[in-house]
Amino acid sequence: MKLGILGTGMIVKDLLTTINKLKIESISILGTEQTKKETTILAKQYHLDHCYYDYDEMLRSEIDTVYVALPNHLHFSFAKKALLKGKHVIMEKPITSNVKELEELKEIAQENDLIILEAVNIHYLPAFKKLKEDIKRIGNIKIMNFNYSQYSSRYDAFKQGTILPAFDYHKSGGALMDINVYNVNAIISLFGQPVSIGYMANIENQIDTSGILMYDYGSFKGISIGAKDCKAPIISTIQGDKGVIKIDKPVNQMTGYQIIFNDGTEEIYRVDDCEHRLYYEFIEFIRIIDNNDYDFAKKMLELSLIVAKVMNEARNQEKIVFTNDN
Amino acid sequence: MKLGILGTGMIVKDLLTTINKLKIESISILGTEQTKKETTILAKQYHLDHCYYDYDEMLRSEIDTVYVALPNHLHFSFAKKALLKGKHVIMEKPITSNVKELEELKEIAQENDLIILEAVNIHYLPAFKKLKEDIKRIGNIKIMNFNYSQYSSRYDAFKQGTILPAFDYHKSGGALMDINVYNVNAIISLFGQPVSIGYMANIENQIDTSGILMYDYGSFKGISIGAKDCKAPIISTIQGDKGVIKIDKPVNQMTGYQIIFNDGTEEIYRVDDCEHRLYYEFIEFIRIIDNNDYDFAKKMLELSLIVAKVMNEARNQEKIVFTNDN
Repeated sequence: MKLGILGTGMIVKDLLTTINKLKIESISILGTEQTKKETTILAKQYHLDHCYYDYDEMLRSEIDTVYVALPNHLHFSFAKKALLKGKHVIMEKPITSNVKELEELKEIAQENDLIILEAVNIHYLPAFKKLKEDIKRIGNIKIMNFNYSQYSSRYDAFKQGTILPAFDYHKSGGALMDINVYNVNAIISLFGQPVSIGYMANIENQIDTSGILMYDYGSFKGISIGAKDCKAPIISTIQGDKGVIKIDKPVNQMTGYQIIFNDGTEEIYRVDDCEHRLYYEFIEFIRIIDNNDYDFAKKMLELSLIVAKVMNEARNQEKIVFTNDN
Repeated sequence: MKLGILGTGMIVKDLLTTINKLKIESISILGTEQTKKETTILAKQYHLDHCYYDYDEMLRSEIDTVYVALPNHLHFSFAKKALLKGKHVIMEKPITSNVKELEELKEIAQENDLIILEAVNIHYLPAFKKLKEDIKRIGNIKIMNFNYSQYSSRYDAFKQGTILPAFDYHKSGGALMDINVYNVNAIISLFGQPVSIGYMANIENQIDTSGILMYDYGSFKGISIGAKDCKAPIISTIQGDKGVIKIDKPVNQMTGYQIIFNDGTEEIYRVDDCEHRLYYEFIEFIRIIDNNDYDFAKKMLELSLIVAKVMNEARNQEKIVFTNDN
């Protein structure tokens, strides 16, 4: 893989700490005039091959894959441009602002035999993969309760009138897109598309600063909480009639879980010597793209589509409209 | 207070362990022919004054207050009879099977200057009273997440076809009435009547074996889980924009809580040397009835009415109909 990274934000800095462990042929990074100094420092620190400040120039280079790590509302246009230039795309979560954008990208990719992957690391975490096997051990699922509430310093700024991207409806922000998206991904990966969903959100300045997403799976029910305006001990439970699985970290950072059976016996599963949480997804992304594993990529994109549909429906219910929706 | 206890079930046995610490002038107990042996043993063990096996005979005695601790569907008829004979009533939770029954009892009590009290111990627990003061310290409430999931051995029987009262729609059972009722009481006591509610339940044999109740309070949202078909670590959180309150026991057994502020500082509040969890409510019931504190009793009955309305609406949404509703 010859990778072009778009952006220099937090997630890029996170990825770079593990990138030299990955077998990537060449790595380029796209900065802006404003982030030029930061971009060159990052490139030097992590031995990146090229810095670009012009996207078209980057797209004319030898890169075969673009990793879109820009603010949410820019995902679509930058990905579309890359696809039209024959590049595969890895897109940060949430993949696009809405379903319409994702369907358009999917069509372009299909027509051009290109791959679109959403960088939701959960699906590739060893602990989550093991959880998917273990879940049958707790019997029939009855209740799910996922809570990812993390007070954001950006909410302090928000209350004082400074609207940063995570709280900006012009930039496809909000608690659902920014934090609950992890719970949604975990739940949809475990159980597929729900029969119906509901969303109850705390809305300020036309954006959800926190909210509770409700899932009706027919034979069982669940909720996931995503909050950026308040915090909580981050505990998620999957409750079956034979026992309960307890995850005591945010799902995107999970390194294990506990199963407590009805008879009181307990099992703890922990992954020792964990790599960086973003390592596992990129190992797979490289494999998929280097081997043109279209089948697997398609399966993952279908999952992204269900997630996008759930989040779109949730926003519709609470009348949260992004500028990108129009 | 001259008390007549109706029933010899678990809650009565629980209460009896602390009853001799309470200043009650005389205590009678009503058993049935089937429970005669058990009733006499209990009476002897706890030095009760009289055993009755005929309700009318008990009502003709000197007792001034009846404590209705019978299966849910019998609350109304036994309470009504007591009121019509001029007795005050203390009723186990849930106070009646539906709002209609409660409104009828309320009317009879008012006409006859009698007191109706619902035995929901939460409202009288020292830790809960302190929580009500401390709640303002966590800023604006954003999210509530109450979970009271306790696997019931009666669910084992239920799955095998034996329907015990807690799972019987003829006997006004179900997870909402039996276990989530504690969460509902705590939440309504803290925040009053919600703007709207929703209920998502797992229904088997026309009864909810578990369910998620959703509360919209306008400026904040919450859920409470009550489950008898699965268990979970019992943790409830009240999340504000300055900090979170964490209760790590079922609300009806709470002896303290933890406040974690956004800056990371923590405070733990614990009641040392707790009395039995039912002691505190009965101390108050005795005071209210011995002093004819109609104002306080009225306030508590209004709370019971809001709880009953919420639970009735929840059942309506999920089409859970009790025999008592018809």
